[in-house]
Amino acid sequence: MESSFGRAIGKKRWALAEGYIPAESHGNSREMTSHEAICILNAGSQKANIQLLIYFTNRDPAGPYKFVIDPKRSLHLRMNELKLPEPIPLATEYSSVIESDVPVVIQHTRLDSRQAENALMTTIGYAED
Amino acid sequence: MESSFGRAIGKKRWALAEGYIPAESHGNSREMTSHEAICILNAGSQKANIQLLIYFTNRDPAGPYKFVIDPKRSLHLRMNELKLPEPIPLATEYSSVIESDVPVVIQHTRLDSRQAENALMTTIGYAED
Amino acid sequence: MESSFGRAIGKKRWALAEGYIPAESHGNSREMTSHEAICILNAGSQKANIQLLIYFTNRDPAGPYKFVIDPKRSLHLRMNELKLPEPIPLATEYSSVIESDVPVVIQHTRLDSRQAENALMTTIGYAED
Amino acid sequence: MESSFGRAIGKKRWALAEGYIPAESHGNSREMTSHEAICILNAGSQKANIQLLIYFTNRDPAGPYKFVIDPKRSLHLRMNELKLPEPIPLATEYSSVIESDVPVVIQHTRLDSRQAENALMTTIGYAED
Repeated sequence: MESSFGRAIGKKRWALAEGYIPAESHGNSREMTSHEAICILNAGSQKANIQLLIYFTNRDPAGPYKFVIDPKRSLHLRMNELKLPEPIPLATEYSSVIESDVPVVIQHTRLDSRQAENALMTTIGYAED
Repeated sequence: MESSFGRAIGKKRWALAEGYIPAESHGNSREMTSHEAICILNAGSQKANIQLLIYFTNRDPAGPYKFVIDPKRSLHLRMNELKLPEPIPLATEYSSVIESDVPVVIQHTRLDSRQAENALMTTIGYAED
Repeated sequence: MESSFGRAIGKKRWALAEGYIPAESHGNSREMTSHEAICILNAGSQKANIQLLIYFTNRDPAGPYKFVIDPKRSLHLRMNELKLPEPIPLATEYSSVIESDVPVVIQHTRLDSRQAENALMTTIGYAED
Repeated sequence: MESSFGRAIGKKRWALAEGYIPAESHGNSREMTSHEAICILNAGSQKANIQLLIYFTNRDPAGPYKFVIDPKRSLHLRMNELKLPEPIPLATEYSSVIESDVPVVIQHTRLDSRQAENALMTTIGYAED
């Protein structure tokens, strides 16, 4: 089998309709703090310039948040650590659109530790070119 | 990179095969009540007119439930708060079809707090035009 | 908006790569017994004839399991309640292929109550025609 | 309905953007150890030669990890049991690309038992040919 590793995989526009950062956590560590992550894979051989926009129920979108991902690298973006242009408010429903200048793959994960035991959820995003 | 933020993303017909609102909850707040949400992103610059139909195992479908989502807005629809044309029965298996007159993105999430600790699940819906 | 409710949605061939029915449960009720469900939506106006095949690691596939879903109905199939041609063994890894003669939508869910608190996971299946 | 069971289903290139093997577990058994699995279905009548590459945040990719899946068989690959060319480090964020010479279907699952109660998440992967 001829390998195509190193070839890019994915699409340039992604959306996640669900978003919510719980305001509370059990556990002290960064690892067990309630969080949402947008995981982005740039499997190709070119740098990925990423822009993220956050949509809300009752106000204009926040962003764009900008990131660069090196070739053949993965970025696990913690939504509760975004600072500029503004932090994402806690306990607030949102949606996301992610755009890249090269193909990437996007997966959404939430770790919820509001109660004593953590809960997990994940999904691949919706993609189009 | 030329940004296409503001351009719509998504499709006009979506389906979710799984649906179930647990009849019981632990915790008093709206936040921790067992619920299912259909999260809808309207990223484009036109209003989205949404119609939702609920399919059951043993009876005719309920709905349509109707919603309007403003441009560049997100709606997190709580299935257990729907009233008209009828509430969705608790502890009953169902499926959903969501139609929009403009492209939207749909994600399904359940928070289950029947036991002391909550459980979470999510998935992007199935889409076609 | 002209509604297309009543039109079928989905595809005719689906696959789920993950499958596993835990051998143990906490809780007595059918509701809280560890289980996997394949949820199938037949939104169209024709009966769906469904065939399910189960793939294992070390033996030939089981099935086909056969089901009929009436028009505009949803079926939440509990994998641990299948009997013919043979029950699915517990605590055994498997994958599924689902075929239909009309378009359907398929979502996979597991409720795991092996420990005191339940865990949940779900995903839309992989589809092609 | 003419059955196409035995026909392959799926695609040849898959990606999962999220990956993380928790460093700790509650419970002694292999069954309840925190783990990530990549589940692969080879429903067709030809052997599948699989190559897996793991992408990180700060270093070059690991792999390829190589596997063969017999026709009409399922493989539930435990990421924490990979040995060659190198084990996947625990508590480290990663992404995966999976390539096959025949169509396969891929689903990603995590069982997290860091706390007393386990959490579960799953998603179908992103696919292209």
